[in-house]
Amino acid sequence: MPTAITADSVGLVSPRVAHFTAPLKLACGRTLTDYHLIYETYGTLNAQASNAVLICHALSGHHHAAGYHSMDDTKPGWWDSCIGPGKPIDTNQFFVVSLNNLGGCNGSLGPLSLNPATGKAYGADFPMVTVEDWVHSQARLADRLGINQWAAVVGGSLGGMQALQWSISYPDRIRHAVVIASAPRLSAQNIAFNEVARQAILSDPEFCGGHFQEQNLIPKRGLMLARMVGHITYLSDDAMGAKFGRDLKNDKLNYDFNSVAFQVESYLRYQGEEFSGRFDANTYLLMTKALDYFDPAAAYNDDLVRTLEVAKADFCLMSFTTDWRFSPARSREIVDALLEARKNVSYLEIEASQGHDAFLLPIPRYVQAFRTYMNRIAV
Amino acid sequence: MPTAITADSVGLVSPRVAHFTAPLKLACGRTLTDYHLIYETYGTLNAQASNAVLICHALSGHHHAAGYHSMDDTKPGWWDSCIGPGKPIDTNQFFVVSLNNLGGCNGSLGPLSLNPATGKAYGADFPMVTVEDWVHSQARLADRLGINQWAAVVGGSLGGMQALQWSISYPDRIRHAVVIASAPRLSAQNIAFNEVARQAILSDPEFCGGHFQEQNLIPKRGLMLARMVGHITYLSDDAMGAKFGRDLKNDKLNYDFNSVAFQVESYLRYQGEEFSGRFDANTYLLMTKALDYFDPAAAYNDDLVRTLEVAKADFCLMSFTTDWRFSPARSREIVDALLEARKNVSYLEIEASQGHDAFLLPIPRYVQAFRTYMNRIAV
Repeated sequence: MPTAITADSVGLVSPRVAHFTAPLKLACGRTLTDYHLIYETYGTLNAQASNAVLICHALSGHHHAAGYHSMDDTKPGWWDSCIGPGKPIDTNQFFVVSLNNLGGCNGSLGPLSLNPATGKAYGADFPMVTVEDWVHSQARLADRLGINQWAAVVGGSLGGMQALQWSISYPDRIRHAVVIASAPRLSAQNIAFNEVARQAILSDPEFCGGHFQEQNLIPKRGLMLARMVGHITYLSDDAMGAKFGRDLKNDKLNYDFNSVAFQVESYLRYQGEEFSGRFDANTYLLMTKALDYFDPAAAYNDDLVRTLEVAKADFCLMSFTTDWRFSPARSREIVDALLEARKNVSYLEIEASQGHDAFLLPIPRYVQAFRTYMNRIAV
Repeated sequence: MPTAITADSVGLVSPRVAHFTAPLKLACGRTLTDYHLIYETYGTLNAQASNAVLICHALSGHHHAAGYHSMDDTKPGWWDSCIGPGKPIDTNQFFVVSLNNLGGCNGSLGPLSLNPATGKAYGADFPMVTVEDWVHSQARLADRLGINQWAAVVGGSLGGMQALQWSISYPDRIRHAVVIASAPRLSAQNIAFNEVARQAILSDPEFCGGHFQEQNLIPKRGLMLARMVGHITYLSDDAMGAKFGRDLKNDKLNYDFNSVAFQVESYLRYQGEEFSGRFDANTYLLMTKALDYFDPAAAYNDDLVRTLEVAKADFCLMSFTTDWRFSPARSREIVDALLEARKNVSYLEIEASQGHDAFLLPIPRYVQAFRTYMNRIAV
């Protein structure tokens, strides 16, 4: 519980839901006849509607990015360190919009929602969604909120991919794209890790072909394994070493498989179990596929320079030295292509020991650079 | 099938089994009252028994390291590229001994063997074994074969750990330790990956608490997942990228979860399925724990220099630039400690794109350096 809400917090916030009845044609070929998106806003939209910032979430993220839902909340939104009065995304300056993407499990239309065609939850019948689909659905949310052009679209990891896609799909509707700890597309190794996570879920007998809800089951073991393997890729080897090393859970080796020997095992199991109790298995599958499929240059003969030529936004890219999920080299691929396409681009590689997770953490150099870039944005 | 056995092959070989009736006290506190080890030998032991080389296998290895069991074999032993006439471990020079470790599933006493106490397979009741236990059991095999001192003990990965342990446990019985792509102990990240693999097996309903044999079941899904996640760590990001990139299985994205989109997914599933049909789940658990627990410096207040002071062997260490499972930095930890302990040590870091798997491959620079070192060994 926040004993008191500090002056740099957006304070108590409440989500809203926007319903859309115009059909949305998806990349997979299927059409959502109608859908809804849950979102939060922080700050005030100015009269010209020129100060709006869109926050795009990553794999397991959601709309609740900043502030508290109640005084009983133990934790604020997932990016509270970067969104608020005086913070990098300064709510004294910007009107911030943060949504849960289509296919999510936090209130937007997704596998947990009722499928009007069957009267049951979609489950595995929910259509596969792509980063492009999300961007189109976000554009309609912008229309609904009276935002013709975002001052900035901002995201880390899979969120950064959405910011990049915005600059390609809607070049006139975005002035700045802030792309953090991201990549122009997944590598074979990235896809391989996602595939292990998916197979863990798909092979859990309680997944029931994706219709576990009807059986009152949850594929917790599969979700737990998926999260464990994901979590390893979010942390650097160094960060894991510094945090756990080879510390034992109970001072001595126990020579059995059921108890926990090392602290790192205990931590991973906890992370996996906690996640399996709050995240939907079908959403996890959808999100990993959206990651795998993201490849904007594919339509341009794998030429990322040509792909980005259409963009009109200015770009800010940031990466973290020990991030091995989306290493600095992946950000530099984007930077190089943007430079060759003659775009304005700022790039900062931040020394940080925390791996991919760094983008969520209040690392002073990162927060400072992020604030400096955002402060420059004319509204 | 080998159409003809080439001159640099050890040719057709047959395993033998050695039975031991003296009890073996294990690090876990339990005692094996009797046990057997399956092994192969290549080359001829000289009159002084001074030319014997012990091969130690890695996680999923076994005794069949070189040659063929029959003319119908499609593949030779797992290290055939390095063992044979004129090869780095030259069987014109050396008498090579290669065994399956205790707890293995290829013919030595292990979880698949009959537990005399119950009349059923050991399964999960097989005691946990450590690298030290293996070295003690290998010393008894040496006694049996009339080998008082190994010219060299050689191994990659977990095999390298055994070579290192030999130099500590039996300093008078080993003249050279060849430690390839190895580490003085696992990092938190290494342990984390092993823990994911173990949880995948333990959570497979067909694991049945480790007594699946009695139910005529095999925890194939768990083994498959364990192998998939392991396999990612054996290959470098670059090697995966070069081999698969983002190549699609069927020319286009399929927007479903059950078919395979990318080649790398197909490859991983194949590797996992193939493995699950030939490896024992309890053995996999035991081998990963032996890896986790290996930490010879733990008994010396984490001082690797002091740990290695007792050693009398000369050392050869090799590592591979893109190996991120046991990176060159891990080998250098051993090299630095050996130098500080005033031991003779040769170290080579080999440029190779193949990641950890490189130690199994006929990479010219590696093969050449390996041969040069082994040629120097006086017999």
